[in-house]
Amino acid sequence: MYINLASHYIPSNIIPNSYFFDKNGMDDETIVRKSGIKNRRRTSANENVNTMAISAIENGLNNLPYNITEVDLIIGATYSPYDTVGTLAHVVQQKYGISGAIVFSVSSACSSFVNAIEIAEGYFAMGKAKKALIVTSEHNWAYLNESDPISAHLWGDGASAVFLSSQRVTDKDHEVLGVNTEGHATIGRGPNGVCLKPFDGGISMPDGRDVFYNAIKYMSEKTESILEKSGCKLADLNYLIPHQANMRIINKVAETLNFPIEKVVINMIEFGNTGSASSSIGYSQVFGSMQKGELAVVTVFGGGYSSGAMLVRV
Amino acid sequence: MYINLASHYIPSNIIPNSYFFDKNGMDDETIVRKSGIKNRRRTSANENVNTMAISAIENGLNNLPYNITEVDLIIGATYSPYDTVGTLAHVVQQKYGISGAIVFSVSSACSSFVNAIEIAEGYFAMGKAKKALIVTSEHNWAYLNESDPISAHLWGDGASAVFLSSQRVTDKDHEVLGVNTEGHATIGRGPNGVCLKPFDGGISMPDGRDVFYNAIKYMSEKTESILEKSGCKLADLNYLIPHQANMRIINKVAETLNFPIEKVVINMIEFGNTGSASSSIGYSQVFGSMQKGELAVVTVFGGGYSSGAMLVRV
Repeated sequence: MYINLASHYIPSNIIPNSYFFDKNGMDDETIVRKSGIKNRRRTSANENVNTMAISAIENGLNNLPYNITEVDLIIGATYSPYDTVGTLAHVVQQKYGISGAIVFSVSSACSSFVNAIEIAEGYFAMGKAKKALIVTSEHNWAYLNESDPISAHLWGDGASAVFLSSQRVTDKDHEVLGVNTEGHATIGRGPNGVCLKPFDGGISMPDGRDVFYNAIKYMSEKTESILEKSGCKLADLNYLIPHQANMRIINKVAETLNFPIEKVVINMIEFGNTGSASSSIGYSQVFGSMQKGELAVVTVFGGGYSSGAMLVRV
Repeated sequence: MYINLASHYIPSNIIPNSYFFDKNGMDDETIVRKSGIKNRRRTSANENVNTMAISAIENGLNNLPYNITEVDLIIGATYSPYDTVGTLAHVVQQKYGISGAIVFSVSSACSSFVNAIEIAEGYFAMGKAKKALIVTSEHNWAYLNESDPISAHLWGDGASAVFLSSQRVTDKDHEVLGVNTEGHATIGRGPNGVCLKPFDGGISMPDGRDVFYNAIKYMSEKTESILEKSGCKLADLNYLIPHQANMRIINKVAETLNFPIEKVVINMIEFGNTGSASSSIGYSQVFGSMQKGELAVVTVFGGGYSSGAMLVRV
């Protein structure tokens, strides 16, 4: 399985920490100390997960080494949907006239990007698809409560698009050396650690400490296990791309692994937590600059709980 | 791929057509003439897609030929979620202590049950799972607008649980002879034919005629193609289990195929349209009574648009 292209979109509307002081009482210094976040982006009035997914595709389309209509599998990933029936994946199919494709959307919270990669791997293994498009998109602002002092200031909006193929297309492709996912609903606060209940309060994070502890544990463990399973060493890793929830979590993951923080891709300081899109946006940010032979791990932890990791080599 | 068990749950609260006359102006005679629906079920105050999924499992658990903790893949299917982060699949993992499983939820509207089957097939093909649990659950009443004269009276609540294995477990297993799915967002009204926008109006069906026409076309075509691909004949089919949206659609599918309506599984007259759960509830209704050698086709059409079919033999 190969990744042919990764691109992303971030709304232009910058919301600084100072926005929240009147809303939930959190000041800039406290937000930075607790999360590392300085700014986050917010959609404009006519944007949602569907439009952002299309914007992410548009930002990469000129670099796609084949016609987008060759895609035969479209997987959307979001926990903040605009429409749960005509999902972002269906809207992408319509927009680009990709008739005949297999189309659906998934959620495993902030881990969904890696789940979608693994699901595509299954379709390639069956021979039921040859080229897949995964769009991850989160519209956190649609569901957050600005007065919530625990998590209102953590979230941001954003999207990514990642094209995969069962066979190598160009020598710039990234080969996926391994991908795995796991549900962790049986540990800690499980499904109640992070919530988005569309008709019962929107996004909330009732127990950040439980999320914090498990995110560090599993993002570290999944990184080590995906490297080990593929016979690669951490010392050879050029980029570690974790889920972008909290700078303290990211620092602790790097510390636990004894991995240099300079090689960790970080976008949450400026973008906030963009949910399932966050790690794929990070991957997109380094995709084009990775050199032949370089290795990257995407490692994620999310609500549910859930985790996963992917190892790629150019 | 084999199906080891199918079970379902329908809330006890019966809502007759007469409920709607004061709400959206539709009388019993008109609802029956236009849709065939006489009653539908509605969750009680503490129920949602998560609790219904567990109730569906509980209704079958005594007949499961292995311990539920042997499941290593849990796929939830819903377009009417209670929580999009800690999804119904995660809640099921927690409830039954199924640690180590791969867990996520999907939506391709009313087709999601068949999408989930095909995704499980991919995990079996990769050898990443051996036993899968698919829970489909729809809480339409959470998102419908009772005053909507077009579709308020069409929906019902319900859930199902289907256990699958890569290898045969008992001689009562149903073998999956074929499964396929397709997105149809490029035809007709596509993603706008049926909508559930959690923060923008809930469930709606702006153009029933377009849905009607395409549902007949694709549920018929998918039935024929799955039989043909597996070398089976329509004349040998014992049960046709279509998506349960509208009696006129179901009658037209039977007429188009020249298939006896007596062999068509129908639950929508009493349960309403239970979304992605509807066909799997229908499958569950006949699962235990199917005899050795008998064939059944599940054929679905849903928002997105989307379609799919599955052929099983005992």
